[in-house]
Amino acid sequence: MNFCSHCGSPVTLKIPDGDHLPRFVCSNCGKIHYQNPLLVLGCVPEWEGKILLCRRAIEPRLGFWTVPAGFMENGETMQLAAARECYEEALATVEVGSLLAVANVTHAGQVHIMFRARLLLPKFAPGPESLEVGLYEEAQVPWDQLAFPSGEFTLRKFFADRAAGRGGRSRRFPSPR
Amino acid sequence: MNFCSHCGSPVTLKIPDGDHLPRFVCSNCGKIHYQNPLLVLGCVPEWEGKILLCRRAIEPRLGFWTVPAGFMENGETMQLAAARECYEEALATVEVGSLLAVANVTHAGQVHIMFRARLLLPKFAPGPESLEVGLYEEAQVPWDQLAFPSGEFTLRKFFADRAAGRGGRSRRFPSPR
Repeated sequence: MNFCSHCGSPVTLKIPDGDHLPRFVCSNCGKIHYQNPLLVLGCVPEWEGKILLCRRAIEPRLGFWTVPAGFMENGETMQLAAARECYEEALATVEVGSLLAVANVTHAGQVHIMFRARLLLPKFAPGPESLEVGLYEEAQVPWDQLAFPSGEFTLRKFFADRAAGRGGRSRRFPSPR
Repeated sequence: MNFCSHCGSPVTLKIPDGDHLPRFVCSNCGKIHYQNPLLVLGCVPEWEGKILLCRRAIEPRLGFWTVPAGFMENGETMQLAAARECYEEALATVEVGSLLAVANVTHAGQVHIMFRARLLLPKFAPGPESLEVGLYEEAQVPWDQLAFPSGEFTLRKFFADRAAGRGGRSRRFPSPR
């Protein structure tokens, strides 16, 4: 950050009065420009016991596998963001269920929040950010080809919870089976 | 947003190629300035069955009661942010425990994430953002004087979980009792 987004004057890095961290402060209008962590929202879409995974067509980690996930937008709920990302990356429509995982990704300035989800139809295809998309059994998950540690954490928790009977669907989230 | 924080030129609001929402885009260098939800982190600090609440000395909702919470900073984990906010608002030191609540606050462009916590000592005082700070029994909580719906949601879940024996402490988070 070099300039004030409000008035266009140069900013300087300094600790404002009453604060404890350096911030970009406008040399003209005095506006303080905070920089904060970003939210990444995603889900594990399930269909008849298989889960939907995407192979990334974009950096970082092009060619590696991920659950559908991406940056939450203003005006969205977490659940809507997770469903939107699933549609954008896998052209798949989901009903978002219970909270599955919340992970610090401190080095990237991110928090990742993942939900369980149910595919409404076994219909999917690669969106512009995916090379391929598919439904996989637990034994077919490419654990050594996953894009991000938060995705591995999410998938391991998903399968552990499912095996233990945790994370079951509410009445508003019935199993298709 | 009026000017590009990178080069200082005016920005215009338009939908970039391949995107689906209007963004502030620099008319000179082309940089896209995304605006995303903010994370608010907090906790419910417990000491011998009582919980720590703060009465706000700042707007919004000056004079109303809240759990210690505030904006997460880059470079922090969620747990560190929750503990830092508790120290800033109540000059109290906590050990942060298990995840308690995650709430959409869509109208404000925020997600609130709350943890259980244990006060390490029954020592606290109002920080600069608090008028008063105290330990309260469940029956003493000023439900009609709470600052935010996410705080009420958090406290109701805290007491419901405690009554049901849920959200118990791990071995790394022993009860002081």
